[in-house]
Amino acid sequence: MTDIEIAQRARLLKINEIAEKIGLTEDEYEQYGKYKAKVELSVLEKYKDKKDGKLILVTAITPTPPGEGKSTVSVGLTQAFNKFGYNSIAALREPSLGPVFGIKGGATGGGYSQVVPMEDINLHFTGDLHAITAAHNLISACIDNHLKHGNELNIDITQITWKRVLDMNDRALRDIVIGMGGKANGIPRESSFQITVASEIMAILCLSNSIPDLKEKIGNIIFGYNGKGEPLKVKDLKIEGAAAALLKEAIKPNLVQTLENTPVFIHGGPFANIAHGCNSILATKMALKLSDYVVTEAGFAADLGAEKFLDIKVRKAGLNPNAIVIVATIRALKHHGGGSDLTLENMETLKAGMANLDKHIENMQKYGIPVVVAINKFITDTEKEIGFVKEHCEKAGVKTALCEIWEKGGEGGKELVDILIDETAEEGREYKPLYELDLGIKEKITKIAMEIYGAGNVEFSDKAGKTTVKLEKLGYGNLPVCISKTQKSLSDNPALLGRPEGFTVRINEIRISAGAGFIVAMAGEIIDMPGLPKKPAAELIDIDKDGKINGLF
Amino acid sequence: MTDIEIAQRARLLKINEIAEKIGLTEDEYEQYGKYKAKVELSVLEKYKDKKDGKLILVTAITPTPPGEGKSTVSVGLTQAFNKFGYNSIAALREPSLGPVFGIKGGATGGGYSQVVPMEDINLHFTGDLHAITAAHNLISACIDNHLKHGNELNIDITQITWKRVLDMNDRALRDIVIGMGGKANGIPRESSFQITVASEIMAILCLSNSIPDLKEKIGNIIFGYNGKGEPLKVKDLKIEGAAAALLKEAIKPNLVQTLENTPVFIHGGPFANIAHGCNSILATKMALKLSDYVVTEAGFAADLGAEKFLDIKVRKAGLNPNAIVIVATIRALKHHGGGSDLTLENMETLKAGMANLDKHIENMQKYGIPVVVAINKFITDTEKEIGFVKEHCEKAGVKTALCEIWEKGGEGGKELVDILIDETAEEGREYKPLYELDLGIKEKITKIAMEIYGAGNVEFSDKAGKTTVKLEKLGYGNLPVCISKTQKSLSDNPALLGRPEGFTVRINEIRISAGAGFIVAMAGEIIDMPGLPKKPAAELIDIDKDGKINGLF
Repeated sequence: MTDIEIAQRARLLKINEIAEKIGLTEDEYEQYGKYKAKVELSVLEKYKDKKDGKLILVTAITPTPPGEGKSTVSVGLTQAFNKFGYNSIAALREPSLGPVFGIKGGATGGGYSQVVPMEDINLHFTGDLHAITAAHNLISACIDNHLKHGNELNIDITQITWKRVLDMNDRALRDIVIGMGGKANGIPRESSFQITVASEIMAILCLSNSIPDLKEKIGNIIFGYNGKGEPLKVKDLKIEGAAAALLKEAIKPNLVQTLENTPVFIHGGPFANIAHGCNSILATKMALKLSDYVVTEAGFAADLGAEKFLDIKVRKAGLNPNAIVIVATIRALKHHGGGSDLTLENMETLKAGMANLDKHIENMQKYGIPVVVAINKFITDTEKEIGFVKEHCEKAGVKTALCEIWEKGGEGGKELVDILIDETAEEGREYKPLYELDLGIKEKITKIAMEIYGAGNVEFSDKAGKTTVKLEKLGYGNLPVCISKTQKSLSDNPALLGRPEGFTVRINEIRISAGAGFIVAMAGEIIDMPGLPKKPAAELIDIDKDGKINGLF
Repeated sequence: MTDIEIAQRARLLKINEIAEKIGLTEDEYEQYGKYKAKVELSVLEKYKDKKDGKLILVTAITPTPPGEGKSTVSVGLTQAFNKFGYNSIAALREPSLGPVFGIKGGATGGGYSQVVPMEDINLHFTGDLHAITAAHNLISACIDNHLKHGNELNIDITQITWKRVLDMNDRALRDIVIGMGGKANGIPRESSFQITVASEIMAILCLSNSIPDLKEKIGNIIFGYNGKGEPLKVKDLKIEGAAAALLKEAIKPNLVQTLENTPVFIHGGPFANIAHGCNSILATKMALKLSDYVVTEAGFAADLGAEKFLDIKVRKAGLNPNAIVIVATIRALKHHGGGSDLTLENMETLKAGMANLDKHIENMQKYGIPVVVAINKFITDTEKEIGFVKEHCEKAGVKTALCEIWEKGGEGGKELVDILIDETAEEGREYKPLYELDLGIKEKITKIAMEIYGAGNVEFSDKAGKTTVKLEKLGYGNLPVCISKTQKSLSDNPALLGRPEGFTVRINEIRISAGAGFIVAMAGEIIDMPGLPKKPAAELIDIDKDGKINGLF
């Protein structure tokens, strides 16, 4: 059976039953259809003195193209906690619509570890991404409108950094000229569309602790520079209130359920390269108030998503994570060891590929909290291969669980649950970030590149170097940094598999997300508007006369 | 008190109470928050043998810039029906988000005749417009993707008629160049964004009778022409299923309530110039099954919205309207009579301005059903002025009601209710369309222009003339026509007030909405992407810490 077939056969509980299960009163949530709800932020205030549950981050080794099943493990793990008698809520990222029509399909787990209703979540869900699109493009429209009506702020049209966004894979919008056609249509200039998840508004929504915080952060967005090179902010346009009003509902965490009827928050999903790649602070905090074990995930591999989760999100939210799970597959380890046919047993390539996992384990151990490895089992894995990985990790003092959650749902996650209960039992272990915020921007970038990626050194382009000086002068020197690089390698070169060493990371450009509150360091070109393949997945998607969707995967 | 203050003080019923009132079972609707719901299409099947209620169309004289209060009268009228003991549901149009940030503010009525929750309805509502945006832009992305991947269909890039859409007033997107930046970004070409309500997908959603019908209509959209000049359809791209899947929820009518807790469907809202300007067929049909008096409205004045309602929507839906209400204001009548200070009593200009109302009455009488005039009272109207209008209309055999629904809610609509009960009592009166579909395209356009607008003749540009020939050859000759012209005059010249006569209507261009199923005749330039004013309304909109919105009007 395909994922959508499994999902459509699931017996869902009405969302009010899920809400009741986690102790929400009728006034504390709003239904969006029968199987989705938005939870009021007042819940956080109500439980503010209640002790938080344990926070478990799921991350992964450097992925192969099909992905290592991080979402599937996250969903399976929260199902497993509940199955074996613990209260657990997962707090996950919200999928983007655009890629659904390309190659990728949905992002709600797989097999018997899925979040449902998968069609809704993968399509419009509760409208959060559309609201972000609207808030973003309101700012864009007001910038061009300001240019047209006299440009009082003296906006330099060659220095407008704010683009437009759409939640669609549409490469023809990457590089465009707007404002053509004469005076009535404004001032012609070059611009661009990004996919919505790349919007700074998405990062802000996920890093906000309240509505006033959201509004303030939107006001602080730098959308460009004036003729004197001074930054211009959204609050200079006086529209931060309107943009925040557009996010009135989007800021509330979304409640759904797994195939095993356990509660899940799915809320927010910024890119894990130019942004921090984790679900919203508000959803994570809410889950921590409403359950004992919160499972969350971060985008891409541990060098990207987990590093940003730990150094950006955790710090801005004042959280204290209790354990990190690194998801690995035998298949991907063999890939990192230089394997070609990954479906055949091959102990040589597997051994060679372990270097990638080892590096991610070492990286995660720097944060002072327990690290566990989860092997996401595939049908082609042999006992010998699995035994080897387990033994290797346990020799290094890292507990390792075999996960059969794709095939068996929560039942297949018992080993991982047992380990995590044990590992998170100790109180008072303190997470510590990799770097202090008062280091210089270049120092922070260098520390991440050398200590996490394994770089020998870091080179900054002249332009990037100048920007760091400018940003420090403007008072942004103490922000955390968010390095944007390929997810395909620990290095900034997608071709380097395994555990590359001694390489040079090249930072071409430094950007500022002054609203979200981090500095973006660009190591290589990142496409922030994907394209569609020759035969897009859209051709396979269909709807029948009763509104049932087929072909989504 | 402002409209939003009145709306925020209203005591709303939970939407499930409203749903129960109209006989819906729990399985027949889905809540979207506490005060909005989407109703399942299965309701239509369930009541297919039940007799329809009476259908009353609210339209208006040629409007002045602030509008004549057509929505306010529609809402007030349905409130009045319920107040005085009749079952009534209003079936209204869904507002566009973009204009909210410009000048216009919301579109949910005013004073004590409003639909609530007005903030939600005016912002994202249940996401219908966002879904339409996504479905539209999926088609756009697939067109450019097809060009990039070898252009098997031989699309002529100079003959692509399908644009992109955004629900934002953003004039800088009216005329753009896309696909720049080299091979990876596709093929450079000129294009454009329209506002979402101008999308053919919006017209299709509103003219569809079921999901299969929706999908078929989307497949029939002509998005451009190939090198041989042959039309290319969305079904050639094989993505009508995916586009329809994106509209899975959007196709379901939205249920909300008035300030007086009476039920209202708000669903769909195409432009009334390049499209037909009415709410969805499905919502209108559902309201007719669930109540005795259905109040609906059509965009702009009676020469545009009502004509299209009667000749396009009614025909495609197989409806039989029972009465037409023409809304007039003393203020606007004086404007049409050449008045300048419209707040002062002026019998001369009022008398002169009556010609506009007279023409709209005569026009509506051509459809064979009762016509009633509703005077939407303003505080500056004098008794003498009101008395004059009433007497004038009644002399011509048209019943006329004074409406005080802005100030008094349903209570202020008694006179109009009494007249409508009376006028619609007679069974078996048959609506008849203005023209038969088997006339030629030019003949149909000419008939509307001469008989409805009062034109002396119609001139077709060479280009328009050629297109009519081409479309007739392609088999589209028997579609109804949708004339796109200014709403500010009965003629195609916005400066001609009152009742212009003997003028020439110039048709510059003929377009085809092959999916929606009508031919668009362009009489003058229509801006399908509005701009923002120097000081946009967005600057006034704000949200407080509890999520309450201010400054929306």
